[in-house]
Amino acid sequence: MSGERFRVTYHICGDESSAFEKAKDICLEQTVEISDELVPDGPIRDWILGQIEHFAPVRDGVFQAQISYAAETSAFELPQLLNVIFGNTSIKAGIRVENLEFGQELLGKFSGPRFGIQGLRKVLGVHEKPLICSALKPMGQSPQEFADNAYAFAVGGIDIIKDDHGLTDQSFCPYNERVEACAEAVDRANRVTGKNCLYFPNVTAPVQEIFTRARFAQDVGAGGFLINPGLTGFDAMRALAADDALNLPIMSHPALLGSMVTSSKNGFAHAVLFGQLQRLAGADASVYPNYGGRFGFTREECASISQSCRMPMGSYPPIFPSPGGGMTMEKVTDMLTVYGNDVLFLMGGGLYGHSPDLTANTRYFLSLIGRKD
Amino acid sequence: MSGERFRVTYHICGDESSAFEKAKDICLEQTVEISDELVPDGPIRDWILGQIEHFAPVRDGVFQAQISYAAETSAFELPQLLNVIFGNTSIKAGIRVENLEFGQELLGKFSGPRFGIQGLRKVLGVHEKPLICSALKPMGQSPQEFADNAYAFAVGGIDIIKDDHGLTDQSFCPYNERVEACAEAVDRANRVTGKNCLYFPNVTAPVQEIFTRARFAQDVGAGGFLINPGLTGFDAMRALAADDALNLPIMSHPALLGSMVTSSKNGFAHAVLFGQLQRLAGADASVYPNYGGRFGFTREECASISQSCRMPMGSYPPIFPSPGGGMTMEKVTDMLTVYGNDVLFLMGGGLYGHSPDLTANTRYFLSLIGRKD
Repeated sequence: MSGERFRVTYHICGDESSAFEKAKDICLEQTVEISDELVPDGPIRDWILGQIEHFAPVRDGVFQAQISYAAETSAFELPQLLNVIFGNTSIKAGIRVENLEFGQELLGKFSGPRFGIQGLRKVLGVHEKPLICSALKPMGQSPQEFADNAYAFAVGGIDIIKDDHGLTDQSFCPYNERVEACAEAVDRANRVTGKNCLYFPNVTAPVQEIFTRARFAQDVGAGGFLINPGLTGFDAMRALAADDALNLPIMSHPALLGSMVTSSKNGFAHAVLFGQLQRLAGADASVYPNYGGRFGFTREECASISQSCRMPMGSYPPIFPSPGGGMTMEKVTDMLTVYGNDVLFLMGGGLYGHSPDLTANTRYFLSLIGRKD
Repeated sequence: MSGERFRVTYHICGDESSAFEKAKDICLEQTVEISDELVPDGPIRDWILGQIEHFAPVRDGVFQAQISYAAETSAFELPQLLNVIFGNTSIKAGIRVENLEFGQELLGKFSGPRFGIQGLRKVLGVHEKPLICSALKPMGQSPQEFADNAYAFAVGGIDIIKDDHGLTDQSFCPYNERVEACAEAVDRANRVTGKNCLYFPNVTAPVQEIFTRARFAQDVGAGGFLINPGLTGFDAMRALAADDALNLPIMSHPALLGSMVTSSKNGFAHAVLFGQLQRLAGADASVYPNYGGRFGFTREECASISQSCRMPMGSYPPIFPSPGGGMTMEKVTDMLTVYGNDVLFLMGGGLYGHSPDLTANTRYFLSLIGRKD
């Protein structure tokens, strides 16, 4: 038993000796799940057991432990990889996952993002400046009403229109009807504008339905997929991204993932959950709440996500950070400072509320970010 | 647009007026996701929008809001139902899901637990007293070593032997080899004891593999399935429970779900996450960390889970609470007080550490809980 190891950095609350004891517990808990005296000598102790590679203070009462695990313990399967990273330890207060470092062997077992920033820009034909996206809402409208909204946004020059993340297959707006109508409307608008706006229907669904819906969407001309990995499991997104019969970009939505980041003492760092794990699981754009909106993410947390979406990660392409909400005219300059040009702004309610004319609202917002295409 | 509504009770931190504002925000956020002034009059406002049914103080700085949603907004799909309950609101600090109340229509759309307490007791032939279960560990052993352990436990009279939740399909212990060897060993032991010990392999896997592994397990004589819904998504467990080609009981493990309960101000109440949602998603036994063990759940939290596993819930049967760890001779009396007889005790490291003889350890533990079968 030998081979590559991957590294997880945890922040652990406590004084130095108790934090170090917790780090030793993590090594056991995440692998053999028995007490140290029962661990057999030989490969189980030397290779399977987690190993503390580094231990140091971070700030008063918080220490960081970098622990390495044999890549093979993950079976190179995403659910089990998440389990080795944080499965049982998630149930312990005062321990948070701060960073992941994967080697080439492990990263090579997952296909990663298919498009990334450059791939998505190429499909859209927008090679500079930020991209913008809006969502079809409110739930309760008919497929035709959503299609009319999609047409208005697309004629205004928006890059991507996605389903609101709660639109699935409600009887008052069936999936197939909605997706077909909206894909047709966006196609019609593209013939007017000469652009290539993309429609991303929500394929979040019961496990056996996800792929059926994705294939239907691709067949009727959708331009990508929206999925909520917190609702379906991250592996469903990975499988979508890895499916050779499906060849469309993926946007990931954070629904139900909030409890994993709202505490500074448990869960995942924002950059891990909305950056590293999204790329590992094949997202081309990662939606998260923008700072200054109705959720509580700070400017620094948002900047860390943005950085994590774009930092080197094996042969994976960088992906679009997609901050949602909280965007006002006054904040555009600061947001461009934080995010730069490689960002996909998600404007939901803001684009609906500015005026009743969705096309004019879209054009106004494009002008705010310097887009004159 | 009309029909049944379901009710979610949230605990909201804040003073009375801010908590009430947050409750109104939840009604919007979980359904239409636009600001109130943009909500159209008519069925979207009257039916789709969440409605505050009840608002009252709980304790200093915490208020409870019971909010109802049209069942149809869930599309009667589990991922979307979870989204309506807590999707975006999970990202807001200071809001926790405390209780769920579903009507007959919604519950009837999910098949629920197939076996429950009575069904599992019937298969095992153990009609009174608590059940006991152990786990195959540590990771790193070979299929044959695990099979030998399984045999030793089964000969000792244990009720259920499960894979440790981190055993999947590692190259050093391939799934098919392990499952076939352990199922055979338990069958051989049953012929010695005349009992019907069940082996539950871990079917946590990439999304397309879950059902392949479950079918294989059933074909080679496994007695049930272990799955980690925090790793696979809850819907994968629901689909296992609903699959007519699979007819074995399901044990659910809490890996990666910890961050959803470690804060008293966000996430889910223990009774919701480890009781109500497990039953909705078809678990026959719900594993969670016992009080007094190496995790931080309190006696009261554990009692609330146990109660939630067994309280009336439509036509669903009660299921086994399965507290893991923290069991010592001194605590048995108190644990029987908390849990009663309808409990499935999960003894992992404890059964390995008591002495090197797993068969003797099992018999000793059975005697502790008054089992003389």
